[in-house]
This record gives sequence, C-alpha cells and structure tokens, in this order.
Amino acid sequence: MKKMNYQNVKGTLDYLPEEEGIRRIIRRTIEDVFIQYGCKPIETPILNYQELLASKYGGGAEILEEMYTLSDRGKRELALRYDLTIPFAKVVAMNPTIKMPFKRYEIGKVFRDGPIKTGRYREFTQCDVDIVGVQSQMAEAELMIMALDIFKKLKMDVTIQYNNRKLLAGFLRQLNITGQMINRVILILDKIEKISKDKMKAELREAGLEQMAIDAIEAFLQKDLDGIVEQYQQMAEKEESIKQGLEEWNELQSYIKRLGMEPYCVFNPFLARGLEIYTGTIYEIFLTDKRVKSSIGSGGRYDNTIGGLIDSQETYATVGISFGLDVILSALLLEETCLDAKGLDYYIIPIGCSMEALLVAKALRDQGFKVELELGKKKLAKALEKANKEGVKKVVMIGEKEVAGNTYTVRDMETGEEWLEKFNY
Amino acid sequence: MKKMNYQNVKGTLDYLPEEEGIRRIIRRTIEDVFIQYGCKPIETPILNYQELLASKYGGGAEILEEMYTLSDRGKRELALRYDLTIPFAKVVAMNPTIKMPFKRYEIGKVFRDGPIKTGRYREFTQCDVDIVGVQSQMAEAELMIMALDIFKKLKMDVTIQYNNRKLLAGFLRQLNITGQMINRVILILDKIEKISKDKMKAELREAGLEQMAIDAIEAFLQKDLDGIVEQYQQMAEKEESIKQGLEEWNELQSYIKRLGMEPYCVFNPFLARGLEIYTGTIYEIFLTDKRVKSSIGSGGRYDNTIGGLIDSQETYATVGISFGLDVILSALLLEETCLDAKGLDYYIIPIGCSMEALLVAKALRDQGFKVELELGKKKLAKALEKANKEGVKKVVMIGEKEVAGNTYTVRDMETGEEWLEKFNY
Repeated sequence: MKKMNYQNVKGTLDYLPEEEGIRRIIRRTIEDVFIQYGCKPIETPILNYQELLASKYGGGAEILEEMYTLSDRGKRELALRYDLTIPFAKVVAMNPTIKMPFKRYEIGKVFRDGPIKTGRYREFTQCDVDIVGVQSQMAEAELMIMALDIFKKLKMDVTIQYNNRKLLAGFLRQLNITGQMINRVILILDKIEKISKDKMKAELREAGLEQMAIDAIEAFLQKDLDGIVEQYQQMAEKEESIKQGLEEWNELQSYIKRLGMEPYCVFNPFLARGLEIYTGTIYEIFLTDKRVKSSIGSGGRYDNTIGGLIDSQETYATVGISFGLDVILSALLLEETCLDAKGLDYYIIPIGCSMEALLVAKALRDQGFKVELELGKKKLAKALEKANKEGVKKVVMIGEKEVAGNTYTVRDMETGEEWLEKFNY
Repeated sequence: MKKMNYQNVKGTLDYLPEEEGIRRIIRRTIEDVFIQYGCKPIETPILNYQELLASKYGGGAEILEEMYTLSDRGKRELALRYDLTIPFAKVVAMNPTIKMPFKRYEIGKVFRDGPIKTGRYREFTQCDVDIVGVQSQMAEAELMIMALDIFKKLKMDVTIQYNNRKLLAGFLRQLNITGQMINRVILILDKIEKISKDKMKAELREAGLEQMAIDAIEAFLQKDLDGIVEQYQQMAEKEESIKQGLEEWNELQSYIKRLGMEPYCVFNPFLARGLEIYTGTIYEIFLTDKRVKSSIGSGGRYDNTIGGLIDSQETYATVGISFGLDVILSALLLEETCLDAKGLDYYIIPIGCSMEALLVAKALRDQGFKVELELGKKKLAKALEKANKEGVKKVVMIGEKEVAGNTYTVRDMETGEEWLEKFNY
C-alpha cells in the first residue's frame, strides 16, 4: 500500500487543542449571551435540497456559484448549506404553528466552495440570531446591544457601523437608477474602502451609469455627515423610501443614545453590505483598531425573504445578525487574548500505583474538580514539566510510600509548597 | 414561480427549540465531563479526501457504501466524514509533535447515506473521546467511569456491557476459523440478541463454517459465565491471544471492582461490536431498562488503526468511546426527562414603553439575569399566557404609570405576588 498523503482538503483546517480551547470559549460566550437574551436554539441539517438553496430569495448568484452539490442514494439533488438563513426560513415555512415573534439562534457549519484568502475557509462556523415578526427598530437595538455584550465579554474593542438600505436605495432612485441596477451599484459602493475613487467611478461607468449620476454619487460621497442627513431630509419629500428610512434611522438613533451605545456605534452612510436581500437597517462590526480588516459580525433587516421563500402574502419582518466564529478566533489570536482555555485543578501522577491514582482521580472529580490523570508511563520530572507548561494548579503524586500511609502528596505549582493529604484507599 | 415544496431531505431533521434545548444540555453535560477529565478539544473538517476515508483502516465495506461523495471546483474527490475516528487518526498523522498520551475529544456531525430506521438519521452528531498512547487497561477504566459520570449527570440509568475481542477471536481460532472469516463470524455473533438461534446457525453455515465449529459455538453460547471463563482458562495455554485477553480482562475487572463500577458493568462474552477495527476491550452502553434497544454509547480498543493509517511500524495503542447525541435525546424524551431547558429569570412586557423596556432589560441583563423582552405587540393577557407556558420566573410590566413614577411592576409567577421596583429611567 502506498503511503498516504496526509493533508487537509484545500480551504479546510484542523483546530488543535490550543486554538480549539479558545474557540470553545468564544462559542460558549456567544451562546450564553444568546440564551441570556431569551433566544431559542434550533438545529437544521447541513444537507438540503438544491432547489431550496438555489431559490431566488437565497444567497444570490455569487454564493450559488460556490455551492457544494452532491446526490444521495435516492438520486436526490442535494447541496451543503452556505448559510443559516435559508434553513431558518425553511423551518418557519414548515412550522406554521411557531409563535411570532420568534427569536432563534443557531450555531453551525456552513460551506462555500469559493476562492481562498487569508482567514477565509470553505468550511466555517457561523453563530446566527434572527428575529422574525418584529417591524420596530427595537429588534435592531436588541441585536446591536447583544453584539456589544458579546464582545465586551470576549474583551474585544469593537465598533458597529450601521446604515439603512432604504436611504441608500432611495438616493439612487432619485438619480433615476432603478430595478436590478440599484443592487449592482450598491455592490460597487460596498467596495468603497477597498478600491480607489477612480476605480469606483470606472466601475460605475462600466455598469452603464450616466455621467450625471456618477457626478452626483461622487459629490454625495464627499459630503460630511450633516450634509448627507440634510440632503436625505430634502429628498424625503419626493421619495417615500427615504422618508421611511429616515424615520427608522431616527428611531434607532434614539435607542442607541439612550442605551449608551453611542461610543461604539457609527452611522456610515456608504455601508452597503454585499447581499441583495437587505431592506432596511444594516450593520457590520469591526475591531475598533482595525487590526483585522474584515468584519467579525454583520447583519441587517430582510423583510421580504421569508415571505418570498414561503411564497406568502404575509409579511415576515425579519432582522438578523451573524457572528463568524473563525474570524473572531483570528482576531483574538492577533490580540494575544487574555481568555484562558486551560485551568486543570489537579494533575495526578501515579508512581507505579495506577489503581490508587484512579481512586484519587474519582474522588477529586466527584468533588467537581477538573482532574487529569497521567495514563502514560511518564517519569516524574517529565510529568512535572508538562504540569508547568499546561498551567496546572496542583499536582498529586501517589507512590508506594503514600499508599502505605493512606495519603497522597499534593504540590501547589504556584507556591511550590508540598503536603500530604489523608486518603482511605 | 411555483410554490416550493418545503420538506427536509430524507434522513435529516430539524430540531426545534423544545428538543434542541435538551440537546444543548446533553451536549454541554458531555463536554463538561470531558473537560473535567482533562480531555482536550479538537475540531476537524467535515470535508475530507475520499482516499483518506476509504482507507482499509477506515470504516469497513458497509460504511464505505454509505459515504456521501462530491467534488469541489478544483475537481478534488471529496467525501463527508462518516465518523470522527479517521479524522482523528489523520490529525495524529499530520502532527508528529503531539505529545503522547493524547486524550482528545470532538463533538461534531457525521454523515451516512444508509437505510433509515427509527432513530437512525443520515446526518447525526457524535461525541467522541479517544486516548492514544496508553496500552494499560487504565485507559479503558478511565473511559468507562467517565461514561458512568456523564449518564449520572443526565439522570439516566445505564449498564455498560463489555467484552474483549482477543477472547472471542482466540476462541474462533481454536475452532480453526482464521483470517477474514473471524470478522465475518464476529459480525454474525453480533446479532445474537436480534436473530433466533436457528437463523444464526444458518448464517454461520452459509458463511462456510463446518458443522463441528457451529456445534462448538452453540455449546459455548449455552454456557454460563463461570463455564465460559473456565473454558477460556483452558484454551489460554494453547492460544496466546486468549492468554492476553484474560490478563486484560482481569486487570479491567479489578479496576471495575475497586472503582465501584460493578453494579453498572456486565461482562457479556458474546458482545461483538460491528466494526472490524477492534483489537481488545470493547463495550456498549444501554439503558438498564432497555426502553431504547440500541446502544447510547460504545467503543473499544483499536491498537492497529492509527499505525496502519499512518503506515508506521510504531504502535499507536488507542482506545475510544463515542456517545450518540441524537439517540441519547430519544432515550431522554422517552423517559420524560427531568432536565429542564427553560428557566428565564425575567420576561419584560412593555405596555407602550419600548424605550424604557429596553433600558430595564439592559439593566437586568447586566446583572447576569436571563431576560426576554417582548418585541411583538402582544396584549398583556396573551403575554402572561406565554410567560406561564414557558415557565418564566418573574414578569416585568412597564406602562406609562410606572415610567412616570420611576418604577416598574414585577410579578412573581409562582406566588402571584406583585410589587413595584424603583428604576431611574
């Protein structure tokens, strides 16, 4: 048999204990905050019908190209989910008795067969909360303060950028940009921080925009915040979506102020978000020092998606937020996180006496302590080295002498102090 | 657009909040015990190379038939993992600096495109611990007591059946059954509780066994425990693997007795376990009252697999245990579990005052309470109904009167008592 070539599939990776320990803390912190906010857990399958995931209310052309497809023994055409949103919409569709508003969370793997960049994998974990059935900006406020709570607990300094699609789309409509072109232009504007102004203008021209519209966009991009709000206020008289957008924006602003979120929230009138589905408030969360460029969480309001998927006339007002577990890990590793995944209370080193070591391990674990038992045949010196390296609090040594005296030796690894504990073997 | 047919793919299902809340408790209980026993977390990808998963040290022909295969944009031949063992072996192979013994755990989804029976899905979650680098039965004892600890915490009454493959295989060798035929016969014996004795004899005949061997097996199956051990002791002189098996069995027996596991552990000399990889102790965990027939956890020693996969002369003594999250859920649901996934501390009902409700929610959450805020426009009566149904401890009501007096109303849902709390809006 030829020696197998051991490697991971392109775009996938293993998380070894040191990193996975931190990921576990991130995952639990996020989940604990979700629970604290009254969100309910669901779990949906990774395997889905291609037809469902390819729906026009799904991820859009770019994501569909990246969909992993396969078939099962029943020749069903399947695909691996590329997000947690469509499976959530499916759950709402399949379970008409679910009581609204429904605030669910799901943490799980998603798959995209896309280009690989640093920190972008083909298999990654998303942590999503979505609220369906609430039209008020209270829902946005609830999700934003939840996000800030999570990152405070993770000791990460973050800023939420937010915008409202109704404003951006209304402005473009005022320039006689309509239909599919609105989304196309928004996708170009979304690159504002990544490409030069000239490149952006060239792309807008390529998309077929008239010079007048391009000039108006350029002028708009150069205004300060007050100027932009003023322009929106003028346009609001002619453009219903801007009027609605401003109302929503004002409502959200007041929540942000009263809840003390102002220092962490920045209105960014050019924030666009790639996806087409958004219909109102959108937000992206960044490390305040931008040490990691990509966002570590994002989301927004997509009022038409679930209704569209279900093909129902009813409104399914929905707003969601999604945290990327893997990108949060990257950010934490860069920051030399103070989260500590270690912390064994006891490490038991049997010196020949394995039976007695098992008994002491059982007794200490029954008391609730975290206890590792050395199962290998490590020499004492090697074992103490390991204890030091892993930050164990106390080491227990059990040799014949201890057993004969119905005791075991404890060493406090911080102070170096040693003593005997009584134990009835 | 035609109305989409919403259904889950055959063999997959959604877990809605009520069940998923219990699954969350199971998952955390298992993980917390893993951590308490000093196990280290890893996470491996679901996407793997087909070549790796199809290795002859992998799951065996039956499982390979059930492997989901697909390819990516780079035309790589991939498959979804069908267990967590092969990915673990790959991690050991790829990371020669990992210190032995290595005790790792992983909780994750696995996929098998197999026949559907009650409680058997095509996508399911396994919780695995494996210890590599320990030859002594201490490792088995550690895993068995860990399993008992988990089920005690889940308030489930379980029994561990155990056996040793060296004994079973040695006995068959004494009947001149050799090579691949040993595994074939073991797979037939594994069905002992599911098929009649006549059916078993017919299958053994079909497999090509001589009448003498079949008679010997039948006689063996009729012996009591003492008779079986006695027969093994006689055979041990001629058959090295039985000698070793008895030594291991004695060592494990002594751990079971001293650790107080005897009431929960039963030696079952006919326990076979389906998989070919096992080389020593094997065990399966059942509900003591057998209300669920299938095992809720199982594992054993497979000393040759990792070395074989790595194609190394070194020994990678390995023993593992795997818990099925979904089958544990089924068992708990049957037993009317006393695990409770509910337990909100506060449910806040704004009576018109959404801003103030957000402020109170923030204050209570900052104190660490679990707080749900009603975001819909539920009438008070409906909201109180919901609070009752979901077992909320206290309800907070905030209307204009409360706000004017810088207070909010609290109702204890158990006693019905109501009072005002001061709050500085």
